[in-house]
Amino acid sequence: MTTTTSPVTLDDVRDAAARLKGVARRTPVLCSRTLDALAGAEVFLKCENFQRVGAFKFRGAYNAASRLSPEQLSRGVGAFKFRGAYNAASRLSPEQLSRGIAAYSSGNHAQAVALAARELGTTAVIVMPEDAPPSKRAATAGYGAEIVTYDRYTADRVAIAEALAADRGLALIPPYEHPHVMAGQGTAALELLEEVGELDALLTPVGGGGLMAGSATAAKGLHPGIRTVGVEPEAGDDTKRSLEAGRRVSIPVPRTIADGQALHTPGELTFSVNRRLLDEVVLVTDDEIRDAMRFAFERLKIVVEPSGATPLAALLTGRVGRLPPRVGVVVSGGNVDAGRFAELCGGATH
Amino acid sequence: MTTTTSPVTLDDVRDAAARLKGVARRTPVLCSRTLDALAGAEVFLKCENFQRVGAFKFRGAYNAASRLSPEQLSRGVGAFKFRGAYNAASRLSPEQLSRGIAAYSSGNHAQAVALAARELGTTAVIVMPEDAPPSKRAATAGYGAEIVTYDRYTADRVAIAEALAADRGLALIPPYEHPHVMAGQGTAALELLEEVGELDALLTPVGGGGLMAGSATAAKGLHPGIRTVGVEPEAGDDTKRSLEAGRRVSIPVPRTIADGQALHTPGELTFSVNRRLLDEVVLVTDDEIRDAMRFAFERLKIVVEPSGATPLAALLTGRVGRLPPRVGVVVSGGNVDAGRFAELCGGATH
Repeated sequence: MTTTTSPVTLDDVRDAAARLKGVARRTPVLCSRTLDALAGAEVFLKCENFQRVGAFKFRGAYNAASRLSPEQLSRGVGAFKFRGAYNAASRLSPEQLSRGIAAYSSGNHAQAVALAARELGTTAVIVMPEDAPPSKRAATAGYGAEIVTYDRYTADRVAIAEALAADRGLALIPPYEHPHVMAGQGTAALELLEEVGELDALLTPVGGGGLMAGSATAAKGLHPGIRTVGVEPEAGDDTKRSLEAGRRVSIPVPRTIADGQALHTPGELTFSVNRRLLDEVVLVTDDEIRDAMRFAFERLKIVVEPSGATPLAALLTGRVGRLPPRVGVVVSGGNVDAGRFAELCGGATH
Repeated sequence: MTTTTSPVTLDDVRDAAARLKGVARRTPVLCSRTLDALAGAEVFLKCENFQRVGAFKFRGAYNAASRLSPEQLSRGVGAFKFRGAYNAASRLSPEQLSRGIAAYSSGNHAQAVALAARELGTTAVIVMPEDAPPSKRAATAGYGAEIVTYDRYTADRVAIAEALAADRGLALIPPYEHPHVMAGQGTAALELLEEVGELDALLTPVGGGGLMAGSATAAKGLHPGIRTVGVEPEAGDDTKRSLEAGRRVSIPVPRTIADGQALHTPGELTFSVNRRLLDEVVLVTDDEIRDAMRFAFERLKIVVEPSGATPLAALLTGRVGRLPPRVGVVVSGGNVDAGRFAELCGGATH
């Protein structure tokens, strides 16, 4: 079924950009003669690894959170105000005493929601697996979020988060399956196109599909002739398969170093956008991702996490085929520990 | 002895900046809330790791090379022109038949001179040790330079380069001990101050002293009250000792991971500038440099080589003492292989 009303439009992305102004970082666009020579095109890298929390996720989380009602965001202040007046406070429902936002994530979205909450003067509860990397947990807690853990082998994180949200009156902000999240995530592509002008193609990593949907909405909205290319890890080709099938298909949970793209099926909302606006999906192997990370490190002097390096891998391996003259790339994030980078890229080139 | 005429002035740095316009990259200035919070000051990082060839060295090499006479730069074209006319050619001296530029370096200066030669349409001969890292050798040859190797345990590279230069009519461009090199290297600080306005302090790595001399000339010339701080690795404290002694002193060749600062004595010209304009030198250990590289990687998402990370190490360890409100840092380069980075920074934090 193709719908004619899209959950996200160019105006939504523009609106998100206005809200993010002065809050999200306007990340730099980097160019490299070496990369241009290897790719055979002029390449513009929109570096979301320099975004706050180290990834584009902050754009979507903040845009969604900033649209909640003042009451929803009033936890702490509101509660404190009323607590002084015992009689008034005693009449408040648990929801009124305890508002704020919630999310489930073991990765960049956790930090993004935690920081969005802090920026908006409210609090966040993040549902994370017990065995989440200590650095991610520490970063999330560092933004003032409350962390609730679960056993990833026995528990359902969505159910836990939904129960918590219902119980405590929290607004749940999903990592991609939400119009405001997609619109916010699309602002990276909007900024890129505003800065460098029309492009012939735009390469974007595809995980749950929010960044892709927002980016394609911005890009096709501004320049209908632009070629939109999604890049997935070979093992996590759920969006490629879904596009081919014409409907969302599920694959076994993929094993790939691109942890931000290890999803088994596209989002419903995101897929409804991507099936209309995404021209093609190309796949890259984990070894190609490693080589692209090493190239980014040694030649571009930037740190890119595995998922963020997939479009660069597609360019360097020629998997996109013959490139048009001007190509944009969303480098989506740079959250990889030095130790993990050493494991992945410290050895010989493949 | 203090001289009143300096080998490099603010006007020289400005003049170099004009020559470098459109040739050197105007590198980005990065800021980080995390770094500001840790340092207790607003910090502006001038990122010369994004400079062409991956380090500030290109600025000095190109500025010096661009001032050579057209005849000096005419190798190839001039020789070819005359060779057609046998009689004329037979009268030419070897110098006239074979011009161009030369340098001795195993590091960033080699690539800088090779690229400067290519940009100016001439050729470069680079004297490198036989055991120079293959990646550096390949990069230098990649810019079209001829590489002459020597045995670093038995031969004197300066003597080899000088003999070659004399024999073939080449202009030798030293890595720091030259007014045009210092002036060119100072353009990074000039750009930083033009972009962000007055700063209270400027931290710069000190190796041979050219970057420091050029930076201090630009900084004190624009803002006489600025505090200039040089940073050396603990084992390579030749400039600190020389400033304390009031004359150039020699130390044993230092063992440090900061290979760009492994010098045993300051340059004569550079020291004559630095003794006037450098307010203090602070020292950092190799472990502190490693931690700073890891911080740059994980928090700033940029690749910084050991020498380039010394000022960041000084900030993060508090070795500069109480900082004034606005602090500039020259991040001098980012040339470190992924494998070497893994060796240095892949393990636990110190």
